[in-house]
Amino acid sequence: MRQDLITRLNDNPGLEVIDRDFAHLFSSWFNRGFLVLVRMSWSSPATILEKIIAYEAVHEIMGWDDLKRRLDPRDRRCFAFFHPALVDEPLIFVEVALGSDIPASIQTLLEEEAAEDFADPAVAVFYSISNCQEGLRGISFGNFLIKQVVEELTKEVPSLRTFVTLSPVPGFRSWLFRALGCGELPYLSEAQRNQLDKLRDQGWSEDEADQDAVQSAILAAAADYLLRAKDRSSRPLDPVARFHLGNGARLERINWLGDTSEKGVRQALSLMVNYRYELRDIERNHEAYINHGSVIASKSVRSLLLAPDKSRALVPAQR
Amino acid sequence: MRQDLITRLNDNPGLEVIDRDFAHLFSSWFNRGFLVLVRMSWSSPATILEKIIAYEAVHEIMGWDDLKRRLDPRDRRCFAFFHPALVDEPLIFVEVALGSDIPASIQTLLEEEAAEDFADPAVAVFYSISNCQEGLRGISFGNFLIKQVVEELTKEVPSLRTFVTLSPVPGFRSWLFRALGCGELPYLSEAQRNQLDKLRDQGWSEDEADQDAVQSAILAAAADYLLRAKDRSSRPLDPVARFHLGNGARLERINWLGDTSEKGVRQALSLMVNYRYELRDIERNHEAYINHGSVIASKSVRSLLLAPDKSRALVPAQR
Amino acid sequence: MRQDLITRLNDNPGLEVIDRDFAHLFSSWFNRGFLVLVRMSWSSPATILEKIIAYEAVHEIMGWDDLKRRLDPRDRRCFAFFHPALVDEPLIFVEVALGSDIPASIQTLLEEEAAEDFADPAVAVFYSISNCQEGLRGISFGNFLIKQVVEELTKEVPSLRTFVTLSPVPGFRSWLFRALGCGELPYLSEAQRNQLDKLRDQGWSEDEADQDAVQSAILAAAADYLLRAKDRSSRPLDPVARFHLGNGARLERINWLGDTSEKGVRQALSLMVNYRYELRDIERNHEAYINHGSVIASKSVRSLLLAPDKSRALVPAQR
Amino acid sequence: MRQDLITRLNDNPGLEVIDRDFAHLFSSWFNRGFLVLVRMSWSSPATILEKIIAYEAVHEIMGWDDLKRRLDPRDRRCFAFFHPALVDEPLIFVEVALGSDIPASIQTLLEEEAAEDFADPAVAVFYSISNCQEGLRGISFGNFLIKQVVEELTKEVPSLRTFVTLSPVPGFRSWLFRALGCGELPYLSEAQRNQLDKLRDQGWSEDEADQDAVQSAILAAAADYLLRAKDRSSRPLDPVARFHLGNGARLERINWLGDTSEKGVRQALSLMVNYRYELRDIERNHEAYINHGSVIASKSVRSLLLAPDKSRALVPAQR
Repeated sequence: MRQDLITRLNDNPGLEVIDRDFAHLFSSWFNRGFLVLVRMSWSSPATILEKIIAYEAVHEIMGWDDLKRRLDPRDRRCFAFFHPALVDEPLIFVEVALGSDIPASIQTLLEEEAAEDFADPAVAVFYSISNCQEGLRGISFGNFLIKQVVEELTKEVPSLRTFVTLSPVPGFRSWLFRALGCGELPYLSEAQRNQLDKLRDQGWSEDEADQDAVQSAILAAAADYLLRAKDRSSRPLDPVARFHLGNGARLERINWLGDTSEKGVRQALSLMVNYRYELRDIERNHEAYINHGSVIASKSVRSLLLAPDKSRALVPAQR
Repeated sequence: MRQDLITRLNDNPGLEVIDRDFAHLFSSWFNRGFLVLVRMSWSSPATILEKIIAYEAVHEIMGWDDLKRRLDPRDRRCFAFFHPALVDEPLIFVEVALGSDIPASIQTLLEEEAAEDFADPAVAVFYSISNCQEGLRGISFGNFLIKQVVEELTKEVPSLRTFVTLSPVPGFRSWLFRALGCGELPYLSEAQRNQLDKLRDQGWSEDEADQDAVQSAILAAAADYLLRAKDRSSRPLDPVARFHLGNGARLERINWLGDTSEKGVRQALSLMVNYRYELRDIERNHEAYINHGSVIASKSVRSLLLAPDKSRALVPAQR
Repeated sequence: MRQDLITRLNDNPGLEVIDRDFAHLFSSWFNRGFLVLVRMSWSSPATILEKIIAYEAVHEIMGWDDLKRRLDPRDRRCFAFFHPALVDEPLIFVEVALGSDIPASIQTLLEEEAAEDFADPAVAVFYSISNCQEGLRGISFGNFLIKQVVEELTKEVPSLRTFVTLSPVPGFRSWLFRALGCGELPYLSEAQRNQLDKLRDQGWSEDEADQDAVQSAILAAAADYLLRAKDRSSRPLDPVARFHLGNGARLERINWLGDTSEKGVRQALSLMVNYRYELRDIERNHEAYINHGSVIASKSVRSLLLAPDKSRALVPAQR
Repeated sequence: MRQDLITRLNDNPGLEVIDRDFAHLFSSWFNRGFLVLVRMSWSSPATILEKIIAYEAVHEIMGWDDLKRRLDPRDRRCFAFFHPALVDEPLIFVEVALGSDIPASIQTLLEEEAAEDFADPAVAVFYSISNCQEGLRGISFGNFLIKQVVEELTKEVPSLRTFVTLSPVPGFRSWLFRALGCGELPYLSEAQRNQLDKLRDQGWSEDEADQDAVQSAILAAAADYLLRAKDRSSRPLDPVARFHLGNGARLERINWLGDTSEKGVRQALSLMVNYRYELRDIERNHEAYINHGSVIASKSVRSLLLAPDKSRALVPAQR
């Protein structure tokens, strides 16, 4: 019903009262205490798995073979929240990869197979979080999901030390070219501006030399975008950043060539970001963010702002 | 938490605000759609069955053998509502006996074993409904429970035609003696008043002759109590009557010697009542009750009011 | 272990003793009383469903979409036997279609969707039975499976009156051309023989006229093959016939153009057969088959033998 | 069926052939691989728990409250083997107590409550093993059960170091008095013989002084009985000793006043025995027992044989 309603809100602003009633009711019905965390696996019912395929909103799942690669290997996990009154419908799910390092590229992560000698992974990577129910828009589950999955994994895999995301930066490219057009971004050199102009006009080049030339400009601008750009409510412009920073994560690393898919280039000129969830800091980070609008970031990310002409990807990009 | 709170309400009226908040929240959390109907049986976990023993509030269950007699025979059923977030805690349960006739005595019903040739019972008797959670006071489940059990039984036992209760009349005795003391009850003869005075002063006699003498007086007064006595809100004085009439049931029959236990005599001078749930009339009865305060009763109950001196139990009492 | 063993039997005849021990042990371990019938559905675990895809031995399942078409629609069923000690491994499964008529063509059956007004189907068609475990070769489950599925469906869908198979005739083509080469099949006219020779040499023609010309010859020969051709133990030559006739089914109908796939033409020149399971006759048919080698067949099938020159498909083929 | 058969074997020796067939079939049907270990708890179905009460063959369970004391506290466990084809029927079960010491008295063990500061128990005591199915007589499950429970508990309670039984000595008393009557037991002094004669004639005295006087005689004789007394097949006379020694356990300790119930005194003059399961020795002990008839016993038990006049309970008896 609410899904229907939402499609008509634009044309019928009067319906917003009803939508708020729905949201109020649903935030009570779908409160944290009722949600059930379930591990999705290759043993889950096909009727649910086909919904995972359909609802994946970040990195599309290309059919059942691809799904199996994300669920079945011993270095992969997927967890979903269910509500007891909706037995066949996941509310939200997160896909996780276990490994030895913080990953810098989604293509590498999706393609890689677990090493022969895979054992005792130290790093858990949340590389995709998808909300499933349009009718529950505005009822937030992601925060709880990440925290409960961290707990769950800590119990199941005691060797884990680090919990990070590999996240998109959906608003970066359009922000960058708008700011460029308005003559902002004073820290860029004339040469860098020209290169970015060229990039905007001619598109992403497969030529590595060209990419290298703009890399430092893009990384400096990305740090600016993530650390300084704010919306009217003084919150970060980037919606993914708002979500993870609001949950108490730290902006850990910006990855050049993190997502070289058409979508990754279109949204963020190939950048992806790691947000890090450190249990002992979550509460403090969250408070600083909520009360003072502070964006907690690692030193290396902050350094990108200081010496923009030397900005380099913080890890060697894997091609 | 609310259970604790409730015990302090009398001394701290200021806490009532909090209690109302609880009630509001719980009526959302425990709304009908979330409740799960579960058949309690001898195969249910002991941890839940011991709660059935503890929570039975109408006709005490005397240990595990007695419990087995109420759950296991093929002419008995017990159904409970559970909430998904409270896996071990029934919220409310109802005990049911299947048979061929509308029963007139709880002692007979509890002691009787299914006939050898028991098959295709026509009557389902709800003889005990108990709320389990003091902390959910005021959140009403009984109405839904009865209706869903009627549906469930209709599917499982297609021969069923009649759904009735065998219910106590908890407020009758104290109402009767108060009215007697005030000189009310004009329809009673002088002899009947004297007999009731004697009954009040000397207690319930095991002497059948004595009992017979007051039977017609008591039945007439009971019909008066159930059909006419109202509280300030113009609802029936008797709480059990309010519950079943409000659900859309009909007052079907008043049973002399329906409950000869100490409690039955103390509360209602041995009377028990059958309320009848007829699916096609429930809605109409409910509307009449809510909108006009009408107490829907069978002709035979109404006739007790007209000729009080001849009032007789509507069925031969089984002793 | 036995699966391994079986692959070596040919080269090591001495291992047959061990194989017989396995077979003896497994027939005890996998006896009827331990098998659990489970309905396979779109809600079954993917890990089991992918085995259904892999094990289907009669009409290949082309991926997950095809599987869904065979499990999910309301006019389809699939049942498997499991053993409690092998939770993820079906032992044997059968695919069923519900409809209003005995089907004549597997292509039509697989492609057809349930009619809009599908309700109260009268016919259940077993169109594929696959054994899953090579290691259980010789331990027979099919008989029990069919009977238990008949019982199960009778309860679930009371409108069902007829239980038939739509079965392949795997040995027909090679038998036919061998017999033709040896100058057998005296009931065929010279013209028919020439047509069959041409068919053997030039392959199956898409030309309907050509097909019609040989249809009566092929049907007569098929009736001969199924009703009269015997192996050394005096049992029917065709293995599928042996299975269903041994279970007590009746040879109901031979279908021209029943399977026009490459495999169907290669094995049986497009013929498929319906075997019919009539509960009240099963025992008698089975006894007649076992004790006297009788092949119980419908009148229409038997009539194909009598007037071979006029043999026509018993139903209009659906193209 | 076999249960019936067994009752008739005595009068119909010819039925033994059939009984052997049953035993052969059942040892295949109930082989180790099919048995499912299930923890019995207060959350188990009442229908199964009432069978635990009924089948307990060593230390009677006095109703549901007693059962709860054996299942529910955090220092108690109960495990049973089930067969998938007999869902409601345990085949065998064992009751376990967790604690800090090897217990010397069943009364103390049954009455004691877990200490307030109970944590990290070092000792698991198997104090009762009961076979449930007369029809499975001769099909041995106990050995597997103990080993699997040891594994299970090792996983669940990593602090456990010691696995012992607290076991009855069912044949001791009658063996002792028979040997006494025949003038055997040369290691007893005249005074000890007289005391035992008195004990036999006048029964067990509540007088502690009397008991102390015979204690050393009884303990020496018990060591003799358990270490030396053999049946015709050169196996230990005591059936419980045969079972645990055959499983590879070691005779660890003999406990004076281990079972002061009427049954304990009648069978074994209050003695109970601890057999110890040490995983690394089980195989070797088992081999020594099977191949050489060796009774593996602790030094302290063996020492009872050497200085019988000074035999004392190995731990201070708890009264």
